[in-house]
Amino acid sequence: MGEALTLHEDPRSGNCYKIRLTAALLGLPLTTRAYDIIKGETRTPEFLATVNANGRIPVLQIGTGSEARFLPESNAACWYLAHGSPLIPADRFAQADMLRWMFFEQYNHEPNIATLRFWLRFVGEANLSSEQRAQIMAKRMAGCAALDLMNRHLADNAFFCGDAVTLADIALFAYTHVAEEGGFGLGDYPHILAWIARMQTLPGFAAMD
Amino acid sequence: MGEALTLHEDPRSGNCYKIRLTAALLGLPLTTRAYDIIKGETRTPEFLATVNANGRIPVLQIGTGSEARFLPESNAACWYLAHGSPLIPADRFAQADMLRWMFFEQYNHEPNIATLRFWLRFVGEANLSSEQRAQIMAKRMAGCAALDLMNRHLADNAFFCGDAVTLADIALFAYTHVAEEGGFGLGDYPHILAWIARMQTLPGFAAMD
Repeated sequence: MGEALTLHEDPRSGNCYKIRLTAALLGLPLTTRAYDIIKGETRTPEFLATVNANGRIPVLQIGTGSEARFLPESNAACWYLAHGSPLIPADRFAQADMLRWMFFEQYNHEPNIATLRFWLRFVGEANLSSEQRAQIMAKRMAGCAALDLMNRHLADNAFFCGDAVTLADIALFAYTHVAEEGGFGLGDYPHILAWIARMQTLPGFAAMD
Repeated sequence: MGEALTLHEDPRSGNCYKIRLTAALLGLPLTTRAYDIIKGETRTPEFLATVNANGRIPVLQIGTGSEARFLPESNAACWYLAHGSPLIPADRFAQADMLRWMFFEQYNHEPNIATLRFWLRFVGEANLSSEQRAQIMAKRMAGCAALDLMNRHLADNAFFCGDAVTLADIALFAYTHVAEEGGFGLGDYPHILAWIARMQTLPGFAAMD
């Protein structure tokens, strides 16, 4: 590895946890630096100028000082860490199929399941704007559709791509295993519950907090 | 290559266009099969059972008959096609950085710019639900923020990763070059306009329609 790895994160964020879990499963040392997104600590001029012009965490920092490089987007950071490891399948179709689940996670899963968890657990329903409140039902339905698709896939498969853990599992595990904090009951999805249990017994597994 | 490639698509969709543009730049033959998403042609029992249980296009079909494999998610399909080509940088950081822009596209760009284009150009403002109407302003602001970030990056860079075209450019080009159909004026983003012109002169470039 060589270069020092620093994760700029909010410990409550599942997107940040994906990177910590990837590093843990690979046995890679990772330094963390915490920000409070609710207090706007990722929107300061210094953060925007040096860490991420998009004002978001997580960002994986590779190296230090003037040589440091910064990588935003959780799934891209996981990709960097897992380069050349069994967490990324070598087969051409399998690799694309793993990315397919990671794009599904960012498009169909995270904006619904993670956003409702953030709104309901951290912002608080009473503090939501009327625009946010008007989206709850649509996000609830879309989140359930994502969980249903995952559950059906896991009925016949131990993991999302083939029979071993890959980055697709890590990306989907992060917000799925805390989906109940967003008001999603997992009791209707027995294959997801079995997969969560499989994930939690992987060698090197690290819990979210 | 060898195996036949079939794109299940709606020709109006920028996500489908990404795959056609990737194939065109690589000189790969691609058969297309068209569906009308507004008429629900990707939600039929047959489509859900054989092409994509998520009821969405695009889906890249690799091979035919009982040997066929199906790959949903536009950016994953582009990844499959571009395997081993210069459209995917070989360097570890550059590869992750390219994926970073592709995840940004699916999370920050597409849900705002593509969705407003779909609502305003194809569904029609008069036909939107009150929940959709309530989201227009937030999507407008988030879409402008995505364009602003792209414009600032392109002020110092000819393409998104390094000095040659990669899948990051293809993914972002698809909905950016038709953003005005969603009510986004591109006149405020001169570096985006120059990049669009560069994309349109690439050898093998294919227009959206």
